[in-house]
Amino acid sequence: MLIVKKFGGTSVANKERIFNVAKRCIEEYQKGNDVVVVLSAMGKYTDELITMAKDINENPPKREMDMLFTIGEQMSVALMGMAMNKLGVPAVSLNAFQVAMHTTSVYGNARLKRIDTERIKNELEQRKIVIVTGFQGVNKYDDYTTLGRGGSDTTAVALAAALHADACEIYTDVDGVYTADPRKVKNARKLDQVTYDEMLELATLGAGVLHNRSVELAKKYGVTLVVRSSLNNEEGTKVRRGSKMEKMLVSGVAGDADTARIAIMGLKDEPGVAFKLFNALAKHDINVDMILQSIGRKGKKDISFTVSEENADEAAKVIEEQFDDYEGVDVNKNVAKVSIVGAGMQTNAGVAAKMFEALYDENINIRMISTSEIRVTVLIDQENTERAMNAVHDKFSLGD
Amino acid sequence: MLIVKKFGGTSVANKERIFNVAKRCIEEYQKGNDVVVVLSAMGKYTDELITMAKDINENPPKREMDMLFTIGEQMSVALMGMAMNKLGVPAVSLNAFQVAMHTTSVYGNARLKRIDTERIKNELEQRKIVIVTGFQGVNKYDDYTTLGRGGSDTTAVALAAALHADACEIYTDVDGVYTADPRKVKNARKLDQVTYDEMLELATLGAGVLHNRSVELAKKYGVTLVVRSSLNNEEGTKVRRGSKMEKMLVSGVAGDADTARIAIMGLKDEPGVAFKLFNALAKHDINVDMILQSIGRKGKKDISFTVSEENADEAAKVIEEQFDDYEGVDVNKNVAKVSIVGAGMQTNAGVAAKMFEALYDENINIRMISTSEIRVTVLIDQENTERAMNAVHDKFSLGD
Repeated sequence: MLIVKKFGGTSVANKERIFNVAKRCIEEYQKGNDVVVVLSAMGKYTDELITMAKDINENPPKREMDMLFTIGEQMSVALMGMAMNKLGVPAVSLNAFQVAMHTTSVYGNARLKRIDTERIKNELEQRKIVIVTGFQGVNKYDDYTTLGRGGSDTTAVALAAALHADACEIYTDVDGVYTADPRKVKNARKLDQVTYDEMLELATLGAGVLHNRSVELAKKYGVTLVVRSSLNNEEGTKVRRGSKMEKMLVSGVAGDADTARIAIMGLKDEPGVAFKLFNALAKHDINVDMILQSIGRKGKKDISFTVSEENADEAAKVIEEQFDDYEGVDVNKNVAKVSIVGAGMQTNAGVAAKMFEALYDENINIRMISTSEIRVTVLIDQENTERAMNAVHDKFSLGD
Repeated sequence: MLIVKKFGGTSVANKERIFNVAKRCIEEYQKGNDVVVVLSAMGKYTDELITMAKDINENPPKREMDMLFTIGEQMSVALMGMAMNKLGVPAVSLNAFQVAMHTTSVYGNARLKRIDTERIKNELEQRKIVIVTGFQGVNKYDDYTTLGRGGSDTTAVALAAALHADACEIYTDVDGVYTADPRKVKNARKLDQVTYDEMLELATLGAGVLHNRSVELAKKYGVTLVVRSSLNNEEGTKVRRGSKMEKMLVSGVAGDADTARIAIMGLKDEPGVAFKLFNALAKHDINVDMILQSIGRKGKKDISFTVSEENADEAAKVIEEQFDDYEGVDVNKNVAKVSIVGAGMQTNAGVAAKMFEALYDENINIRMISTSEIRVTVLIDQENTERAMNAVHDKFSLGD
């Protein structure tokens, strides 16, 4: 078997943890498996590099920033190589040039285009553990690029796809994917498996054990993802293609307090208003989540939408700059999203109604509703988040 | 004009110094010249990396060590790129893969084989300052290598040769090459120029502003070296091919206390003894400097030689292991070498005698003598080093 294992910055933050990761990889290796390890920069080292750069130039060129960033992962892989050698196992560390990891040109947020597998395969054939820098790539100008958020997960999945690995294990500080956040819902239960689409919805909803970019990539190439804890030997959660035999109607409940509702009242009810609004927001890189449009009185309409909290004030500003003809803007940061996710939902009516019933039983008011094929999301007052999550979790008997 | 400028770790040890170097390079650039900058790792960062590595594995594989080392220079060049950008000048940083710098395979002590100049030339044509990582290269396996001692100087000279640069300026914490160490000889004088061969002898003698590897390379390719201070705008010292018009008989006086004399008494006077001795030392990587053999009594001979102080005890151990038949070994660490160096010496008799006279006037006993075409070295008691240097410096009127 060929296994790709990815460990984040926390897992390699110091000597002791580096050796823990090394031992874990060696166990796999000693079963006779081929092991490729993808690492992030140690602990908060990337933040330290940002501080270092900003001290020199508060607005550093992105190309040079990537040149600086990439040393973080190179440090991790080199030290890991030394740790494995110390434990008597042959290992070799490789950076993005050595692999090579080809990406698009854009600095700071590149996409992987192609991964050469020759070098890695050669090293595996010599029975070495191969340790690869996550997060980084090389563009057509032969410059370093970085992959942006969730970059190392993406590297791991892409490598697993390119190498036709049997599994891609993502090690985190949780045991796997849960039916709800165990800190908020007491009888939350670890799932043995979820589908890519469920995981995507959960990632988008901020229940994010995995970044959705890596899940999308895994889905595209059919890579079996395993979310596991770097702290224990639990089996973790498998993320894979949905089975027709799904019994679970709903897989999990997610809550996300990092959201704000913006309501614009009394806009003119004429074509192009929504386009103008959301186009202006997009140009300011503001991602809009839920959207609700209601028909108002006398040829007017109201539009409400949610954005992340940090974008709320800028979004309000954009509206004030772009529109003259409206009655008012209201920004409410005191809201939260609660969602249920489940691949079984597609073929089962009444799931949404059951969720609403749970909230009604708790006397929790729903401010907005949005649905996808495998998700129902409601916007509620933030103070009710945990109560709502528990009520919904119980309603669908997810803890059983 | 195309100028290669090399700055060591001290010159880029912090933000203020990084900006000083940036400004200095920009001055050159604004004269209309093309500027290539070679940098070492910041301050003591390479030592920090060694500490980090040894903490994981006291005997780390050299390949992984080089993988770790190379991040030091990459950090320097990326931050320098940001500093120059901040000052409004286009700059681009390049590592050994991006240049590319091809070296021999050996990790930790590779030799440069070939430098691709296409990327650098392209960047220069776009009127960018090009900032290159010193000390590092890439071998035929596509692995990082490092060049060992004096590595960044070597990178700078090799780049100057490959790019047919008009000069290679090595910035240090001294103004240039002096007739003697100014801390020891008060009226020591800065030289406007020295020949490659003089510089080589001075480097070997530990007066080492430049590592002899970089001087040898400069000599081979006829690169004009300039040793300058990174702290002021003094002209510095030019190192170049010797001129027939040389007026100076002696260019400088060097003292080196890092030496130990080992004497083996009563060896058998038969063929192969010296071979056996120095072959054994070479196998233990012990460099021998001065050698003196004297014929003893009754078919016996004595051999004395000098090694660096750190190798003295091991050398004595090697002798004890290799030889049975001798009367005794004496190790004396309380000695020092004092040398005069000068290209003019070759064609002038009596230079050595004049040096010995200076020492005799000071009543300093000479224990060993060794000469090359452009150098005379004596071994004396360590306590007399400064007095000897001053006496010889005065005798040849080097301060005038």
